[in-house]
Amino acid sequence: MAELTKQKHPFLMIPGPTPVPQDVLAALAEHPLGHRSPEFSKIFMSATEKLQWLGQTKNDVFIYTASGTGAMEGAIANTINAGDKVLCLVIGVFGQRFADIAKIYGADVTMLSAEPGQCISPEQLKEALSKDKFKAVTLTHSETSTGTANDLKALMPLIKEAGALSIVDVVTSLGCMDVRMDDWGIDVMLSGSQKGFMIPPGLSFIYVSDAAYKAKAQCKSPSYYFCWTQSKKALGQNTTPYTPNVSHIVALELALQMMVEEGLENILERHSRLRDKLRDGLRELGLSLLTDDSSASAAITAIYPPEGIAVPDIRKAFQQDHNIVVANGQKTLKDKIFRMGHLGFVTDENIEMGLNALKDVLAKLS
Amino acid sequence: MAELTKQKHPFLMIPGPTPVPQDVLAALAEHPLGHRSPEFSKIFMSATEKLQWLGQTKNDVFIYTASGTGAMEGAIANTINAGDKVLCLVIGVFGQRFADIAKIYGADVTMLSAEPGQCISPEQLKEALSKDKFKAVTLTHSETSTGTANDLKALMPLIKEAGALSIVDVVTSLGCMDVRMDDWGIDVMLSGSQKGFMIPPGLSFIYVSDAAYKAKAQCKSPSYYFCWTQSKKALGQNTTPYTPNVSHIVALELALQMMVEEGLENILERHSRLRDKLRDGLRELGLSLLTDDSSASAAITAIYPPEGIAVPDIRKAFQQDHNIVVANGQKTLKDKIFRMGHLGFVTDENIEMGLNALKDVLAKLS
Repeated sequence: MAELTKQKHPFLMIPGPTPVPQDVLAALAEHPLGHRSPEFSKIFMSATEKLQWLGQTKNDVFIYTASGTGAMEGAIANTINAGDKVLCLVIGVFGQRFADIAKIYGADVTMLSAEPGQCISPEQLKEALSKDKFKAVTLTHSETSTGTANDLKALMPLIKEAGALSIVDVVTSLGCMDVRMDDWGIDVMLSGSQKGFMIPPGLSFIYVSDAAYKAKAQCKSPSYYFCWTQSKKALGQNTTPYTPNVSHIVALELALQMMVEEGLENILERHSRLRDKLRDGLRELGLSLLTDDSSASAAITAIYPPEGIAVPDIRKAFQQDHNIVVANGQKTLKDKIFRMGHLGFVTDENIEMGLNALKDVLAKLS
Repeated sequence: MAELTKQKHPFLMIPGPTPVPQDVLAALAEHPLGHRSPEFSKIFMSATEKLQWLGQTKNDVFIYTASGTGAMEGAIANTINAGDKVLCLVIGVFGQRFADIAKIYGADVTMLSAEPGQCISPEQLKEALSKDKFKAVTLTHSETSTGTANDLKALMPLIKEAGALSIVDVVTSLGCMDVRMDDWGIDVMLSGSQKGFMIPPGLSFIYVSDAAYKAKAQCKSPSYYFCWTQSKKALGQNTTPYTPNVSHIVALELALQMMVEEGLENILERHSRLRDKLRDGLRELGLSLLTDDSSASAAITAIYPPEGIAVPDIRKAFQQDHNIVVANGQKTLKDKIFRMGHLGFVTDENIEMGLNALKDVLAKLS
């Protein structure tokens, strides 16, 4: 029999969906506003401005009713023509996804790949860029499948020097790690609502620089729902081209207001601190981590199971005994690692709870 | 000063977003489930099966985290190659949107248009189909911009006889009007969550027949986020290819369960009855309607303002004095008509409330 004190839904320590604050959940239960009303436009524009603040940019941001993958396709469909040479940095499943989409749009794709847990070094990128003239480079900041982060600050100038457009997946990094679109010269970047933004999945965000608009002007690939021309025109009228998820945008604005009140520096410090606390605790339990400290994502940590203990058993015990969900590995890493998310609405107490639960889980399974 | 009894959000009598039942709003305030959990898969598959029930079909249904327009693009991107001849039936803004999308995908588009308030007759369609060999025909069931409905039952056999693929927008009709995908031989149809489904905007649904899959197999247009191949593969594993809006899918399943309990016949009878009640009441107020009774949508009614009274003033008085939102006309019909929605979670009392408010509004403005 279930205990009375057990929450209906388990606590999520996966890389999204992430925990949602009570006030934000309450906002989702409000009757929807009309999407063409002045009341909604005001909230929509406030959310848009706060997304600019979070991305440290003056560039346009479009809010799409779609998953992050939709925004990834939009990034390609608005900039890449069939035959364009695109360099795709692949350090996991989501880097590979960019390459897959670019190929579907007819791009001539070159992949620069790293082993799981490794990032791409500036030297590797420099060498790859020297071998050909690329129209664009796609890369992942924080790779959700491995918990490994590329050093954006070091890589961006190399892409700029090579005269290529940078298209960056900041899905799990934005709101967790420093992302300076303007200072670092990122041309296109995108994220999703169920990550650092503390709201459920349902929205994605794409940031578009002047250089990206220039690429759009020369792009012949078909695009409608994610078309920047329509999005920009609507944004100029404080709205979206098609009926958006008004409830999620109201929730987003509220969550972003909470983030503004916490302050960007504090948000970034908290995510770094919780990452380090988790990594220290995992090592104290004798566990090995997939990614070195030097390139560890502040959003997600990938952990090898102890010898003789199966990942599915760890996940099952987590959920059954502690009502906590942790993630399996994806694709080739399935059952080889498990992943714990620590992004968004997460506290020191949550990390301690996760570590205590894991200690108990391992003792049970040993 | 606002009255204490005034609801925070106005009552929506627009063609979506539509009113949402209290239990469904409460479900939206629950902590999100993990999208790869067995708990979520069960709810997702239950929603999928109920969507089949609503569309009266055994065909696959895919749930996308996107607006209806995203599903419209998906319908084209999965079936139409550049150069394909497509006949687009245009009786308003949303019929035109199909033509716009098809053109962006390089289709050779022929338009068969009707004046606002008119539908396409079987004779008109027959004649248009006789002039060329079309790969596909796009059409709107209930045109949201005019409140006019095409007679799907009469038109579908003509498209079938002509050997063309039918791609039908049932965005505002599904869950309000009879839509028999299998009986009528519809090849592709799509809808959106903020309409008859009684939940906020954020999801869209696409129904795919065997004939549509055959077209997909020969389609070279680029498509990733809305690609049926990925959606079908994931559906076979009781899930979606990319992180879906789990909260909205939980709400959808609950709303569909309420619809199952009401019964399809009752749902359709209620929408017809409320349409007729509204139309009778409007005529009693001396107002003219854009659409004849014979082709009136059961979801939305377009109304001419009385001479000398401006549409924006009507909308303003509705909201200020009665906290009710009605819609303006779109594009060429802006300020020429106003529109009242009566789809989804709507009762006789709501229609009476809308008519009483309108009587008051007109008296004030006369």
